[in-house]
Amino acid sequence: MIIYFRPMRVKDELKQEAVIEATVKLVNETGFVSSSVAKIAKEARVSPATIYIYYKNKEDLLVSTYIEIKHKLSKALLENFDETLPIRDILKNFWHNAFDFARKNPDFIKFTEQFSNSPFSDLVDKAEVEKYFLPMLSVLQRGIEQKIIKDVHYEMLGAFIFFPVMILSNPRLCTDIKLNEETIEQAFTLAWDAIKL
Amino acid sequence: MIIYFRPMRVKDELKQEAVIEATVKLVNETGFVSSSVAKIAKEARVSPATIYIYYKNKEDLLVSTYIEIKHKLSKALLENFDETLPIRDILKNFWHNAFDFARKNPDFIKFTEQFSNSPFSDLVDKAEVEKYFLPMLSVLQRGIEQKIIKDVHYEMLGAFIFFPVMILSNPRLCTDIKLNEETIEQAFTLAWDAIKL
Repeated sequence: MIIYFRPMRVKDELKQEAVIEATVKLVNETGFVSSSVAKIAKEARVSPATIYIYYKNKEDLLVSTYIEIKHKLSKALLENFDETLPIRDILKNFWHNAFDFARKNPDFIKFTEQFSNSPFSDLVDKAEVEKYFLPMLSVLQRGIEQKIIKDVHYEMLGAFIFFPVMILSNPRLCTDIKLNEETIEQAFTLAWDAIKL
Repeated sequence: MIIYFRPMRVKDELKQEAVIEATVKLVNETGFVSSSVAKIAKEARVSPATIYIYYKNKEDLLVSTYIEIKHKLSKALLENFDETLPIRDILKNFWHNAFDFARKNPDFIKFTEQFSNSPFSDLVDKAEVEKYFLPMLSVLQRGIEQKIIKDVHYEMLGAFIFFPVMILSNPRLCTDIKLNEETIEQAFTLAWDAIKL
């Protein structure tokens, strides 16, 4: 039996970053259907062949872009992570980091929202994404064990402690709230009250 | 000065309903860009001219569809509305009605989510939509005055008492939670704990 190895290539990170940014930009502006690999390549100033080195096809590119954004988000959330702090303080730090990420990367947020509502999201390896968020999940788990946090499914906790960030930082959904230190703190009180025992 | 009156027409409600359903179906399947008035007319089995009796153009049709869905949602939320009940019970009734609506009308929910994230949402007369939700807003207002509910902006309350319904009932966002009487009640406890004083 002959096993064919695809040659390993050192990925050009700068090019990959440009491709991801171009994918996000085009999809946000024109939707999934009209965002072809050719157009994305043009926007990223690389050749379509370069894209096909890294991605099998358009679906793979879209899914990888989504996963990469989730990876970036998870890294942003973990900034100043200190697991010796009380659970409320750890979650508050995640909360502030999440708003920071949403404020700095509205295009990423818009892309992930569209993506999550599209059939492409069925192609995502959920376990791969969850892997990035294990530290957050383990904090919630610890809170449940210590009877600080309600013993409900982590997706339900997430609907109150992570998703409100997306809603509150979406100016089309929350037109009147000015997000600042005060309102972000205020919102955290609601989120914490929701999940605490 | 001559004032031209556009003749009043008795609107054919059945036809209008068909146009709205066709708009929702096409937009959900193919996106805003490729959903033309001609295609929507074909899907609704009416002539494009019929659509132009009721709507100025495609933008007007999309915006009106969104407003009509919000109207339907508000009517659904108000089922069994009894303002003599305690505020928690009134909100719990809204909560159950919202899940019922989301369960019965996933296409409407998908359309409004996409619409809210599109530039078309800037064309919505916010006051018109808010008008439908005044009874809900006045319950929240009463709760704030009676020091039962936290004194924060109603958009912030909404992020915890209304939006979680959309998240929890979206099978692409919450893949593991089985929605049933028990989990919907459980989630209401979190929502109520978030907003109560």
